Amino acid sequence: MKKRKAVWGGRFKSGPTESLRAIGDSLRIDRRLAPFDIRASIAHARMLGKRRIIPKRDADAIVRELTRMFDDVLFGRRVITREDADAHEDVHSWIEHTLTERIGAAGKKVHTARSRNDQVATAFRLWIDDSLGDGLFKRLVPLVHALLRQAATSIDVVVPAYTHLQRGQPVSLAHHLLAYAEMFDRDARRLAACAVRNGRSPLGSGAATGVPHRIDRAATAKELGFAGPSANSMDAVSDRDFAAEFLFALSLTAVHLSRLAEDVCLWSSSEWNLLELGDSVSTGSSIMPQKRNPDGAELTRGKTGRVIGHLVGLLTTLKGLPMTYNRDLQEDKEAVFDAYDTVVMCLRVMTDTIGESRFRPEAAERLLKKGHLLATELADFLVAEKGVAFRDAHEIVGKLVRRLDDEKLDLSDVDETWLAKFDARFKGCAKWLDFRRAVDRRDHVGGTATRQVKKQLAAWKKRLK
Amino acid sequence: MKKRKAVWGGRFKSGPTESLRAIGDSLRIDRRLAPFDIRASIAHARMLGKRRIIPKRDADAIVRELTRMFDDVLFGRRVITREDADAHEDVHSWIEHTLTERIGAAGKKVHTARSRNDQVATAFRLWIDDSLGDGLFKRLVPLVHALLRQAATSIDVVVPAYTHLQRGQPVSLAHHLLAYAEMFDRDARRLAACAVRNGRSPLGSGAATGVPHRIDRAATAKELGFAGPSANSMDAVSDRDFAAEFLFALSLTAVHLSRLAEDVCLWSSSEWNLLELGDSVSTGSSIMPQKRNPDGAELTRGKTGRVIGHLVGLLTTLKGLPMTYNRDLQEDKEAVFDAYDTVVMCLRVMTDTIGESRFRPEAAERLLKKGHLLATELADFLVAEKGVAFRDAHEIVGKLVRRLDDEKLDLSDVDETWLAKFDARFKGCAKWLDFRRAVDRRDHVGGTATRQVKKQLAAWKKRLK
Amino acid sequence: MKKRKAVWGGRFKSGPTESLRAIGDSLRIDRRLAPFDIRASIAHARMLGKRRIIPKRDADAIVRELTRMFDDVLFGRRVITREDADAHEDVHSWIEHTLTERIGAAGKKVHTARSRNDQVATAFRLWIDDSLGDGLFKRLVPLVHALLRQAATSIDVVVPAYTHLQRGQPVSLAHHLLAYAEMFDRDARRLAACAVRNGRSPLGSGAATGVPHRIDRAATAKELGFAGPSANSMDAVSDRDFAAEFLFALSLTAVHLSRLAEDVCLWSSSEWNLLELGDSVSTGSSIMPQKRNPDGAELTRGKTGRVIGHLVGLLTTLKGLPMTYNRDLQEDKEAVFDAYDTVVMCLRVMTDTIGESRFRPEAAERLLKKGHLLATELADFLVAEKGVAFRDAHEIVGKLVRRLDDEKLDLSDVDETWLAKFDARFKGCAKWLDFRRAVDRRDHVGGTATRQVKKQLAAWKKRLK
Amino acid sequence: MKKRKAVWGGRFKSGPTESLRAIGDSLRIDRRLAPFDIRASIAHARMLGKRRIIPKRDADAIVRELTRMFDDVLFGRRVITREDADAHEDVHSWIEHTLTERIGAAGKKVHTARSRNDQVATAFRLWIDDSLGDGLFKRLVPLVHALLRQAATSIDVVVPAYTHLQRGQPVSLAHHLLAYAEMFDRDARRLAACAVRNGRSPLGSGAATGVPHRIDRAATAKELGFAGPSANSMDAVSDRDFAAEFLFALSLTAVHLSRLAEDVCLWSSSEWNLLELGDSVSTGSSIMPQKRNPDGAELTRGKTGRVIGHLVGLLTTLKGLPMTYNRDLQEDKEAVFDAYDTVVMCLRVMTDTIGESRFRPEAAERLLKKGHLLATELADFLVAEKGVAFRDAHEIVGKLVRRLDDEKLDLSDVDETWLAKFDARFKGCAKWLDFRRAVDRRDHVGGTATRQVKKQLAAWKKRLK
Repeated sequence: MKKRKAVWGGRFKSGPTESLRAIGDSLRIDRRLAPFDIRASIAHARMLGKRRIIPKRDADAIVRELTRMFDDVLFGRRVITREDADAHEDVHSWIEHTLTERIGAAGKKVHTARSRNDQVATAFRLWIDDSLGDGLFKRLVPLVHALLRQAATSIDVVVPAYTHLQRGQPVSLAHHLLAYAEMFDRDARRLAACAVRNGRSPLGSGAATGVPHRIDRAATAKELGFAGPSANSMDAVSDRDFAAEFLFALSLTAVHLSRLAEDVCLWSSSEWNLLELGDSVSTGSSIMPQKRNPDGAELTRGKTGRVIGHLVGLLTTLKGLPMTYNRDLQEDKEAVFDAYDTVVMCLRVMTDTIGESRFRPEAAERLLKKGHLLATELADFLVAEKGVAFRDAHEIVGKLVRRLDDEKLDLSDVDETWLAKFDARFKGCAKWLDFRRAVDRRDHVGGTATRQVKKQLAAWKKRLK
Repeated sequence: MKKRKAVWGGRFKSGPTESLRAIGDSLRIDRRLAPFDIRASIAHARMLGKRRIIPKRDADAIVRELTRMFDDVLFGRRVITREDADAHEDVHSWIEHTLTERIGAAGKKVHTARSRNDQVATAFRLWIDDSLGDGLFKRLVPLVHALLRQAATSIDVVVPAYTHLQRGQPVSLAHHLLAYAEMFDRDARRLAACAVRNGRSPLGSGAATGVPHRIDRAATAKELGFAGPSANSMDAVSDRDFAAEFLFALSLTAVHLSRLAEDVCLWSSSEWNLLELGDSVSTGSSIMPQKRNPDGAELTRGKTGRVIGHLVGLLTTLKGLPMTYNRDLQEDKEAVFDAYDTVVMCLRVMTDTIGESRFRPEAAERLLKKGHLLATELADFLVAEKGVAFRDAHEIVGKLVRRLDDEKLDLSDVDETWLAKFDARFKGCAKWLDFRRAVDRRDHVGGTATRQVKKQLAAWKKRLK
Repeated sequence: MKKRKAVWGGRFKSGPTESLRAIGDSLRIDRRLAPFDIRASIAHARMLGKRRIIPKRDADAIVRELTRMFDDVLFGRRVITREDADAHEDVHSWIEHTLTERIGAAGKKVHTARSRNDQVATAFRLWIDDSLGDGLFKRLVPLVHALLRQAATSIDVVVPAYTHLQRGQPVSLAHHLLAYAEMFDRDARRLAACAVRNGRSPLGSGAATGVPHRIDRAATAKELGFAGPSANSMDAVSDRDFAAEFLFALSLTAVHLSRLAEDVCLWSSSEWNLLELGDSVSTGSSIMPQKRNPDGAELTRGKTGRVIGHLVGLLTTLKGLPMTYNRDLQEDKEAVFDAYDTVVMCLRVMTDTIGESRFRPEAAERLLKKGHLLATELADFLVAEKGVAFRDAHEIVGKLVRRLDDEKLDLSDVDETWLAKFDARFKGCAKWLDFRRAVDRRDHVGGTATRQVKKQLAAWKKRLK
Repeated sequence: MKKRKAVWGGRFKSGPTESLRAIGDSLRIDRRLAPFDIRASIAHARMLGKRRIIPKRDADAIVRELTRMFDDVLFGRRVITREDADAHEDVHSWIEHTLTERIGAAGKKVHTARSRNDQVATAFRLWIDDSLGDGLFKRLVPLVHALLRQAATSIDVVVPAYTHLQRGQPVSLAHHLLAYAEMFDRDARRLAACAVRNGRSPLGSGAATGVPHRIDRAATAKELGFAGPSANSMDAVSDRDFAAEFLFALSLTAVHLSRLAEDVCLWSSSEWNLLELGDSVSTGSSIMPQKRNPDGAELTRGKTGRVIGHLVGLLTTLKGLPMTYNRDLQEDKEAVFDAYDTVVMCLRVMTDTIGESRFRPEAAERLLKKGHLLATELADFLVAEKGVAFRDAHEIVGKLVRRLDDEKLDLSDVDETWLAKFDARFKGCAKWLDFRRAVDRRDHVGGTATRQVKKQLAAWKKRLK
């Protein structure tokens, strides 16, 4: 391993053991922070210059060179290599060293009035904020669009709504799909709230107590897009609430994806046969030549565990840590990066899966035939037109179903005449024995009536425009 | 076990096995929902009457009797007993049965146009909202007050600020305590956000698809204090995001409590000897007569695992569930109730622990004597007054510390003369070798300077008024 | 709250705050340890007497009275009441106080040469060991029996084996059921291993360092059924590996139960319609009169999260605790008790669910008709009888399936003639186009052939005899 | 992305989307399985040849070439590159393709009578077994050795034993260190038990039901070192108990490491000042030039969360999966690999940390001076020599401590005369007021007496020889 110089080496007689370097080095992981740390360093250096904490000339040189580095990193002209990772312990020392190599002595002044503790907290917050817009929202929206597109063509497709995986009542397939749009919408708002609630800049908190210079924290906070500086330096350097919140928001998104994935697995089973997976979103078997597996959905469902695991990992790491910064906190980044990458990938996979598959209306009709799907309808008919108390109506229909089962019949096999013979109060129920009418009768906010589903769709289109 | 009648028995020839009753019955747990379910039932019945879905007269009877039950339950005149728990499967059927026993046939109409699925989701959301104000905020505020009171008397107490559990720089003890106030403030805001973000009423979503009656969901939502009705019935009955969010917010609060608890354990150790635990907040040993243990802090720290465990439990339960309601979801309540009770208890314990203990200023002084606490100050002196680049200054002081260590001296043992002999550039550093001045030099937003800490304290007092 | 005397009160001027009592008191939870702590105390007192550490006469009095208490507790003649729970902090002090009340001064000698630290570790280990035999094994065996009974009658029922929830190859339903027997067998062995690996007695480790008396640890270990005394007193009082292992073994059992539950939910759906749930193991809906829900299976699946949550809770609690005993460890018991109770309940529920339901052979036949279930068979025919390399055979059959799909045919719809027209190499494949033969061809250890399944069944019967 | 051919492409008209490839491809992860999959393929091919399922000549060619590949991979002559990872979906198809490229048509026969489902389960089990010996045991032993070496030189160093982080009783530092040896020993045995309990070969289970060829599963199991073939093919392809067990065993090891790390952090704090960290195992600060941080210990403690997170992830992934193989299971490997790498790294770090640091006997003496460390001794004196009941003795000494506290004295400040004035029964206690004697009085198995500690050390040396 190459000899190198740590930014803290002064008092040490020998360098770290190989194992300590291996566990401590983080450039392979935190290089993703490079553009954000550079941006924060630019703001910091500009402020140092304005406040004459370092000479204006030095500040200008730093800002100029860092701006160049920012572009180099962003446009891939400068890539952090394996050699860099061997030679520097983290992205912060890599940036400082690179800067000093290029502009000489002035570079050694960039770390004035800050510490790695406030520096890393700042860069990491910037990364999370950035990951929302270009990463998560950009992936959430197409998934909702894919759901909306399928919904738009399936308003008239009536399927069973399931509770307990048992057929319950008829519902518009579009209504089912829009339920997922609600979940992902809550996810988007939850993620956005992370950014808002954590919008305080730690920069200037130093190692833990602030710095003995006349810094202008409001200025750096503003330049970096924060709502303002944090209120307490000790809290600022040891707070990882923002990372835990982000991991939780990702976990809940993953849970929602896992539920959609489960529905996809069921729908594409031979038993349901409701969803025909596109060739491009299913895979085969190494041994069974006929297989068409919903691997994308399965992997998405499986990866939920991983995202939840990262959340648990960070909470466990934080538990019981005394004030202020402890090196344990270094564990925050890999967990967040991997959870983010995982969720982004799953969003893409489920977007493709929903987008490139086809629902089979003919299968929908078959699914309605068993399950006494209009039983609730009959009970509500008794309530609405015969004045029977609901609890009594429920009991009457319950007995009817028992009789049908004994005779191996489904409610969809019999008509008003048959029913009236079973119980005279069923006279007049004919128009309640219709799937579409049952759907359209649920004509209130949130109900599955065609009119309501169209309203939901219109509202979604408006919001996503 | 007493014979009983389930609200769904119609089609069944025999009752459930003992094991199914044991796993399914929930009245022992969900009886806490009673006042909330009654409130929701009142709003529902009133709406049913107004819309003539059930006769006005019946609706009035239901509302009148439920109002009486609400008071009975709230004021403890009616307690849910072990016998009730044997005779009813859950709080919802207990309420309906009790109602019907008292007012006869009209009671059988209360379940018109709703299902247990929307009913339980509504009552549970109301419970969570309620638990914030009277439970959590009422417990968080005294803890912050206890911290503020200790902070107010310790502005002038200088202690080491620790990073890596190593002494780093001098800091006002009040500043350290206020860091915790920040954490608990974020917790309060995070908890409040749960309520806001989840403020949609599921009532009227029925089993999953809505109900075939002309209900007025906006009216019930308004009466119950929700921002409005939920937008999609399938989502509404299967959504437990609000419970998961609440558990996460509780988990993060527990993590913060665990960090404070860890600090209390350290401070009250013989090694720190900084905090003298009151007799009423410490306990002894069954065998070692001299022990004075910080049990409250230890138990608080230990219980963090339990709260995180509940969060993991619910996320795991939700993972991979297909739409819509599945009975698995019943697991939500016990987890939330226990996590809430645990955090409330820990808040009380830590409030007492902080409130009834005493910091020892004399110990603070002792703690400052070792650890070269002013080393950063010396480096900053070189930067500020000698124009040395920070990175070079850091190196110079690093070597100084190495020399001091070799001579078994602490920086607090030497003076400017000694230092100037080591390196001439230290000439003039005398006034940087003072703990209080070092503290007061950090005079920017979030810094530990006396002026800043007083500002923080004043801001807190204003907010909590 | 009643005034009481703690076993450690000597040096304290005032009693604990109400909050500290609330968080610290554990009699409501640890009363389950009573018979085990009494047993351990008997062994301890007997040894103290033999070694003359306390007078023989006192030891005898203690042993006599504790033996009586043991019977009283075991046979329910002495129940720990709410008043007891208010008056004593834990089960250990309750026992000591009760003893001293009854036999006077001699009772004050029972705590000689031990501490609560070694005492609680001993009683808890004894409880876990005991919970295996009478609790878990007694519940695991009937579940395996229920599976074996269903298997015995379904050897000849051929169903699709699923991978990716897609139909793959024909399999004996009995073979599918026996897969679960394997899992629960591993669970039983894993649980038993907890007992073995943790079979060292902590008694005599004192608070942490041992005790200054000539105790005979081998004797107490032997009397209590341990393999021997633990080797290091500091480890012995702070080790909770046995509790974590037990929670893990319970978690994996819960995971297996959740997989069986998932299969039950699928099998009892209208789509599969393979399993007819008995009336006594399904429940209905408060609104949909026709519903027959697999609630037992769903609740079992849902409760997996809870058990895993307890495991996470304990691991999180243990993480980062310094040596030796810390009060955080008190959290171990409630987690273990609840996880144990939960798994025992789920075992009963799934035993009833499997035992009181019926598989429908007619549904099995229907399930075989779609899914090209014999595709692998055709490929293997090409390998075995035509010398085609497997990878080429897989490709040929893959193309065949594509053609069948295009023509909306299933492989079960065509015969050798049709196939030979598609590709001449299929000539002679007729006898490979038979579900039963396909099953019986897998005639090797672990395969699904009737002969092998019968062997498996016979082996199970022998083992469980 | 390069065009490529999947092993299952036959029936598909188009290839997978980029997102599906991204989520499904695993060669970057599972390449670590290469040598194990090759070994299993060799055993499989040899058996196919022997049984004439494929021509002997083809089998020989396969075995010969795979043997060469095994060596190439093992000795790094063949490295799996980024290009390989783009061109193949997993390590299994990479091996089969490479083989077929080299030996032509015969290579297409290696996949006869197996499936990726049994193949991956076999290779993964082999990897885990292998990771024990060369990985974990090889790292656990040096850590125990490092502890033994420090223990050997600190038998006579008396320090306080802590409970509740409060000083309790005097103990030999060696005894404290040996407590950790016990933990890591349990870890080693727990890890070894994973291997034993899971020693059944899944090879030959095919996709899920076995294979229609006369394979010899006992032969392949034996060649690969398994105890025998698995008993049920459906269980064999979907069982991941072995991975979960391994993750649990790693988690508990990580928890033990975190406890040792916590002790190291405390010992190396200025407050304890008991452990002097070597330069090579501590790091500095970017801003505070005097810092010497126990980063290795902190990172080790922090990484516990990560390992527990992986365990949670896998358990969550497994929860609720129906039979048999589901693609979700692919998540098993990355979790296991990372948890293993993490624990191996932490073991190295803690071995270096313990090995390259120095305990300060002079600090130990200072630590004994406060904390009334001999209070239990005095109580035991009353019991042993004055016939006082322990509970009364505890109370007498409790009051003594209260008096000492009031007078700001420590028990170590007073002598028998002073004590006898406080209470005449203390007459004769002088020889109980000695730290070393107190230690040596605990002279029973597991106690801290010098004689016992030496026995422990001897036993360890014998075992590790």
